[in-house]
Amino acid sequence: MRILGIDCGTERTGYGVIDSDGRCHSLIDSGVIRLHSSDALALRLAAIASSLRRLLEAHAPDVMAVEEVFHAVNTKSALKLAHVRGVALLLAAESGLPVAEYSPLSIKMSVSGYGRADKQQVQTMVRSLLRSNTTEFASFDASDALAVAICHATRAGCPEATRKRA
Amino acid sequence: MRILGIDCGTERTGYGVIDSDGRCHSLIDSGVIRLHSSDALALRLAAIASSLRRLLEAHAPDVMAVEEVFHAVNTKSALKLAHVRGVALLLAAESGLPVAEYSPLSIKMSVSGYGRADKQQVQTMVRSLLRSNTTEFASFDASDALAVAICHATRAGCPEATRKRA
Repeated sequence: MRILGIDCGTERTGYGVIDSDGRCHSLIDSGVIRLHSSDALALRLAAIASSLRRLLEAHAPDVMAVEEVFHAVNTKSALKLAHVRGVALLLAAESGLPVAEYSPLSIKMSVSGYGRADKQQVQTMVRSLLRSNTTEFASFDASDALAVAICHATRAGCPEATRKRA
Repeated sequence: MRILGIDCGTERTGYGVIDSDGRCHSLIDSGVIRLHSSDALALRLAAIASSLRRLLEAHAPDVMAVEEVFHAVNTKSALKLAHVRGVALLLAAESGLPVAEYSPLSIKMSVSGYGRADKQQVQTMVRSLLRSNTTEFASFDASDALAVAICHATRAGCPEATRKRA
């Protein structure tokens, strides 16, 4: 099963693509869509949509995994982030992809066994779970996105073997 | 100037299209995009996007006007609404349309002179401002969307004469 994990943000949106059979995960792609903070929100959403469409076309994932919207800390930021999330969910629906949503706690528990793990701990565990000692992530946004994808792989069980691409 | 006003919602999204020279406004179209509350949010966003694209193509507005995101009452509802707003802003940007945003207070003040006007009062004033005694609106969502459009027409001044279409 090929999973596209997304870590939504209005300045940087991370993405991570993995193949997984539920136990073994392999890294396909990861990175960050960087936005210009001086641009209007609508323009940033268009840039995110354009990049996500390219990713969907390039990797043809089976499912999109995203973090549940999280509003406990800063409502204003959460509201902006929800705009980005709306764009991601729209593109998933328009591509016929199911969407899986996980809480930050679930994601951290899945990759590190510790629900209050910090971004560095998450990144270290993501690197370990992907058996990629040499992997350099573009930023914490990329490893956070991979953590969402790994969380889905683990939770969904991925009954089929790692997907083979033609 | 042709203005598309949108009243975002996850169960019903209202829209209203007017032509205006800043003083006189004429109704071009209005209605409601009704969503199935049992559908996943991603599917609802796709339905909204599909309807908005049709409206943009049919009416070729010069600007999109939307209400500022409003989170004082219910954060959970505001977060869902922000997803819809993200889709609307995306479509505006992809169509090259500028987006104007107004607070609920500004919108109510513009159409009724009273910032705490209720939906019925707003609808009555929208009908009056559009000089359309016979206009029956699909719902308050439609008249609220027209109110956003009228607010923009009034605030922006619409320097050019009512746009003539070929």
